[in-house]
Amino acid sequence: MTTSREVRLKRRPVGMPKPDDFELATVEVGAPGPGEVQVRNTWMSVDPYMRGRMYDGPSYAAPFQVGEAMTGGAVGEVVASNDPAFKPGDKVQSMFGWREVFNAKAAEIQKLDTHGLPEQLFLGALGMPGLTAYVGVKRIIDLKPGETIFVSAASGAVGQMVCQIAKQIGATVVGSAGGADKVAFLKEIGVDAAIDYKAAPDLTKALLAAAPKGIDAYFENVGGEHLEAAITAAKTHARFAFCGMISGYNSIEANTAPKNLVQIVGKQLKWEGFIVSTYWDMMPAFAKDVGGWIASGKIKTKETVEHGVENAASAFLKLFSGGNFGKMLVKF
Amino acid sequence: MTTSREVRLKRRPVGMPKPDDFELATVEVGAPGPGEVQVRNTWMSVDPYMRGRMYDGPSYAAPFQVGEAMTGGAVGEVVASNDPAFKPGDKVQSMFGWREVFNAKAAEIQKLDTHGLPEQLFLGALGMPGLTAYVGVKRIIDLKPGETIFVSAASGAVGQMVCQIAKQIGATVVGSAGGADKVAFLKEIGVDAAIDYKAAPDLTKALLAAAPKGIDAYFENVGGEHLEAAITAAKTHARFAFCGMISGYNSIEANTAPKNLVQIVGKQLKWEGFIVSTYWDMMPAFAKDVGGWIASGKIKTKETVEHGVENAASAFLKLFSGGNFGKMLVKF
Repeated sequence: MTTSREVRLKRRPVGMPKPDDFELATVEVGAPGPGEVQVRNTWMSVDPYMRGRMYDGPSYAAPFQVGEAMTGGAVGEVVASNDPAFKPGDKVQSMFGWREVFNAKAAEIQKLDTHGLPEQLFLGALGMPGLTAYVGVKRIIDLKPGETIFVSAASGAVGQMVCQIAKQIGATVVGSAGGADKVAFLKEIGVDAAIDYKAAPDLTKALLAAAPKGIDAYFENVGGEHLEAAITAAKTHARFAFCGMISGYNSIEANTAPKNLVQIVGKQLKWEGFIVSTYWDMMPAFAKDVGGWIASGKIKTKETVEHGVENAASAFLKLFSGGNFGKMLVKF
Repeated sequence: MTTSREVRLKRRPVGMPKPDDFELATVEVGAPGPGEVQVRNTWMSVDPYMRGRMYDGPSYAAPFQVGEAMTGGAVGEVVASNDPAFKPGDKVQSMFGWREVFNAKAAEIQKLDTHGLPEQLFLGALGMPGLTAYVGVKRIIDLKPGETIFVSAASGAVGQMVCQIAKQIGATVVGSAGGADKVAFLKEIGVDAAIDYKAAPDLTKALLAAAPKGIDAYFENVGGEHLEAAITAAKTHARFAFCGMISGYNSIEANTAPKNLVQIVGKQLKWEGFIVSTYWDMMPAFAKDVGGWIASGKIKTKETVEHGVENAASAFLKLFSGGNFGKMLVKF
């Protein structure tokens, strides 16, 4: 028997989640049954989309159940195997995050070949957030060299990849982030104009100053004021990719923006929401392109790392207060 | 010299336009100069988009100038010609609405072949509103047989055409309009479910009752509550065509809806705004399809007719109070 700690949803958060909406529990994990594999996680991911799974009701991802361990992306190592496809020491990826040790059927975990890269990259730049950025820029927006793209939450897990993929395509990039350190990082990774939205008295004016000819594309992670600014700065036929709208995830009152939505008609804007899982077909191209750019140093990645499953909930909460910088991870 | 009355913009309306934002003036029109044609209008169109031209500032259509006659779609008859391409009695179309008689260069007017149909149809079902409906349904939404489309302002100039083009395609149509007479008309033209939004205590519930499996497409003429209901009722990958948002055209306070915009991500919605003038390439197909359906009686059209240029401004104002039923026209 092995002891494992796990984070459970104690109650459905109302508004901004609080630490005591979660609870840490200790469970005993027996030997893996036939066809099962036992994995000890080394890293887990916290992502904004998990907030949506804390609500009850139908959505694109099934809701977390109260009293049960939550799930999410994780990387770990096989410690015992009762299936011929895995052996102790194998690195694996799974959706069994939020816990230290688990047994799973062999089909529920995937072997991870890191190609010599740090394994946690496969929860960030080379994982779901990176693929999300790649799909949004390449498929949804279809960004062209010489175009101008505006990226909100530009230093976040997805945003930093959007910025750098756009630069590889040859676009001009305007990024928004909160704080001087994040803005400095954006400049470091080649963003042409970086806006500190916390310091800008008027985000729309700041965007128009950064992109005086307007924007051809917008990558939406935030909602609210950012979306209004993007609408005002949009050129005719601009394309908007809607990846998420974190500003509203914890609202009790429904969100009211954007107030200038009517411009979607006159500017003939094209908006499209997307979920990365719809676009698994792009995984090989993504792995080749982005894997190559990372291996050759053309793309840099920023991480914030918290330690221990007991700090996973607080790591998650930091996503909503801007307390993360780059990809937020928990190391076990 | 001929006397002509014309409607001028007296001041830029603030909020809902009022009768005294306009003024009727009388001018003398001389004989047409070289290359010019003199036309007496028989019909003119009032359209919601004209409200946008009453604001100052850049938009897709140039603003009306204070103190000058407004412009817009009109049908008339040549009364004198100083150009070999036109002769008295020719029926013509032009953008010289809001006036009784005018001189224009031959290149500024178009000959109108009515194919035996009532000439005012070319300001409605066979004109700009009809083409708008055709572009939205066929090009922007690309509606397929068996799909379900929701149409707001469904008994209006554009909406009634959207409904009937969608029925010709073989779709299920849910239309919203205000009042029992409009709802009765929608049923007459084959709409599968008609919602009287003025009588429905909750538009979203009414839409979900009319389309329990959800909607594949939404044709947006209104904004506000209608858009929120459409978002809630949308199936995954639903397509929304944004033709206009009349509910907000007169707002002094910026509009706040839709409050459920975040669902654009999870439902992977595709939204696109459009301006009919971008799609003139569809005119021949439109004339063939819709002209054929009207000539054969498959498509019916509803008009509200006011009389005399002196009533043109009040006809325009009725567009915003639901006082029109079908295409609003002014007969001279």
